[in-house]
Amino acid sequence: MKLRSLLMTLALTGMASVATAVEWQTLPNKAPEPADNPTTPEKVALGQMLYHDPRLSSTGTVSCASCHNTMLGGDDNRMVSVGVNAQTGGRSAPTVWNAAFNAVQFWDGRAASLEEQAAGPVTNPIEMGMKNWDDVVARLKTIKGYQEAFEKAFGPNSLNKDNATKAIAAYERTLITPNSPYDRYVKGDEAALTEQQVRGMKLFAEVGCAGCHSGPAFNGTGGFVKFPMIKNGYFEAQYQFSKDKGRAEVTKKAEDENTWKVPTLRNIALTAPYFHNGSVKTLDKAVKVMGKLQLGRELTDEQVSDLVAFLNALTGEFPQQTMPHLPGTPGVTLNP
Amino acid sequence: MKLRSLLMTLALTGMASVATAVEWQTLPNKAPEPADNPTTPEKVALGQMLYHDPRLSSTGTVSCASCHNTMLGGDDNRMVSVGVNAQTGGRSAPTVWNAAFNAVQFWDGRAASLEEQAAGPVTNPIEMGMKNWDDVVARLKTIKGYQEAFEKAFGPNSLNKDNATKAIAAYERTLITPNSPYDRYVKGDEAALTEQQVRGMKLFAEVGCAGCHSGPAFNGTGGFVKFPMIKNGYFEAQYQFSKDKGRAEVTKKAEDENTWKVPTLRNIALTAPYFHNGSVKTLDKAVKVMGKLQLGRELTDEQVSDLVAFLNALTGEFPQQTMPHLPGTPGVTLNP
Repeated sequence: MKLRSLLMTLALTGMASVATAVEWQTLPNKAPEPADNPTTPEKVALGQMLYHDPRLSSTGTVSCASCHNTMLGGDDNRMVSVGVNAQTGGRSAPTVWNAAFNAVQFWDGRAASLEEQAAGPVTNPIEMGMKNWDDVVARLKTIKGYQEAFEKAFGPNSLNKDNATKAIAAYERTLITPNSPYDRYVKGDEAALTEQQVRGMKLFAEVGCAGCHSGPAFNGTGGFVKFPMIKNGYFEAQYQFSKDKGRAEVTKKAEDENTWKVPTLRNIALTAPYFHNGSVKTLDKAVKVMGKLQLGRELTDEQVSDLVAFLNALTGEFPQQTMPHLPGTPGVTLNP
Repeated sequence: MKLRSLLMTLALTGMASVATAVEWQTLPNKAPEPADNPTTPEKVALGQMLYHDPRLSSTGTVSCASCHNTMLGGDDNRMVSVGVNAQTGGRSAPTVWNAAFNAVQFWDGRAASLEEQAAGPVTNPIEMGMKNWDDVVARLKTIKGYQEAFEKAFGPNSLNKDNATKAIAAYERTLITPNSPYDRYVKGDEAALTEQQVRGMKLFAEVGCAGCHSGPAFNGTGGFVKFPMIKNGYFEAQYQFSKDKGRAEVTKKAEDENTWKVPTLRNIALTAPYFHNGSVKTLDKAVKVMGKLQLGRELTDEQVSDLVAFLNALTGEFPQQTMPHLPGTPGVTLNP
């Protein structure tokens, strides 16, 4: 595959200059698993239930899936999400699809794993609003079906925060969208991409997009990148990208100001609006903004159009999922 | 089946007095279909997508499934549901499971069919908040996948309000939960119910519950019933049942004051809290209240316990569903 990819690169770029020699990688069918949380069908089944259960929120109305919708492109297509009691935050929900291929989680990379990430929103007061994980665990323990599902996945007396987040992470590791037109093309199916998409693919390498958006998920190698790289008063006035300090909000270091995790471009066409604050409504505009602010290029309308065509080729196949049946609490409710 | 049911009744009640001769009916595997909307797999597939699509709400956050959750008991286990912008109404969401067996829809029966019902919440300002159905249709028309799904289900140029509600209704007609312990018992499996549940079943007939909660779905014959039947200041002070005039809010007739559709008891254990205003938190209490207010009986704790055991036997088997993949709008969003 590696050799084939390289050959594809050479074929695509014509002259294989160092600047444009991109190694085109296909999306694996399986996500890497941490040593202490190997994926099992029992964990995935439990994780899928927890992920879709609104009873993990204080009001009983918000589940992980509310903002990271597994029936859609893995987010909610909103500028910012709506948590309990109609509260909104400052950052746009990233997609859960292929999140297993992110080196770190959250826009600012403050979680090192899917497990760590999963613990966050549940007790965030403006997201799912549970007071603390003790309350979450106490609530889950009153649901017999969950006691059983935890036992199946982790053994007796295993219903606790760690295992809940492990199960959710195990489920998320199954949320992979392989076989996009791009993947099929890289594997040798030349008809998988249109001519325009192939032009966009070349351009993606040539203008420098692939400098950050590299690897099988087009989400880089795990480092943080400044955005905007180039100051631009016109765009700043419109989109206020710099207002949120990004990673510096976590590290409190000046050098981390306005740096961010490189988001995946897999299924990017399905996750409008764009950027950390969801301020840009369309993919066309997002590409234009990226050209200007990250690469210092004034992309032509035709170039934008070619790049967007290529990005559409990164929309993969969504695995068929069985809808979970959430265990009930006969005769009582846990909600207000 | 009819004869067998009758024999069961005789066997159960011991002496078959007229007052207690209940015809125990099992839940059909198929719901009745209106002549102008026969169920087809294409309509069901489309209806399932529409039912779960939050883009049918003004904010992109509320779908039919938000309040009538098909992963749970068909409602949201809340006193009252939460619509767009955290608005709440005055009535508790009824279950969508087996709603196809209701003679009329909504608590006050103001919709004569599932089709008519489906049109309501989408443009209700405190539920899904769309301005009008023209806006809904215009929005759906921008989604290529919906154009295709409507064409498959209804033929070319068929994306309109009528067909949208027909598809949702066709999907809802598949939401049936057969083979509850009760059904298996009535079909001859005597081990399907516990002794306590059998006692509860007899009691259900003897004390008069079955007078209103009759038929295969335990939801009566389509008439409206006064609730509370018997005035009781103590309960009224606690639960304020009479505040909402029920069917009279629709008909404006004095004789309809505080009358309501008879709700199904299928899966009743999964849909706490109870009554039109969701004011009673537990099934135990709901049974006690019903005894007092509808039958003029002070049920003993043991009787309540037996009846609740029987009601738990009405929890059916939930069909395995494939999670729909909702069609995207590449590069743009329809949400705010």
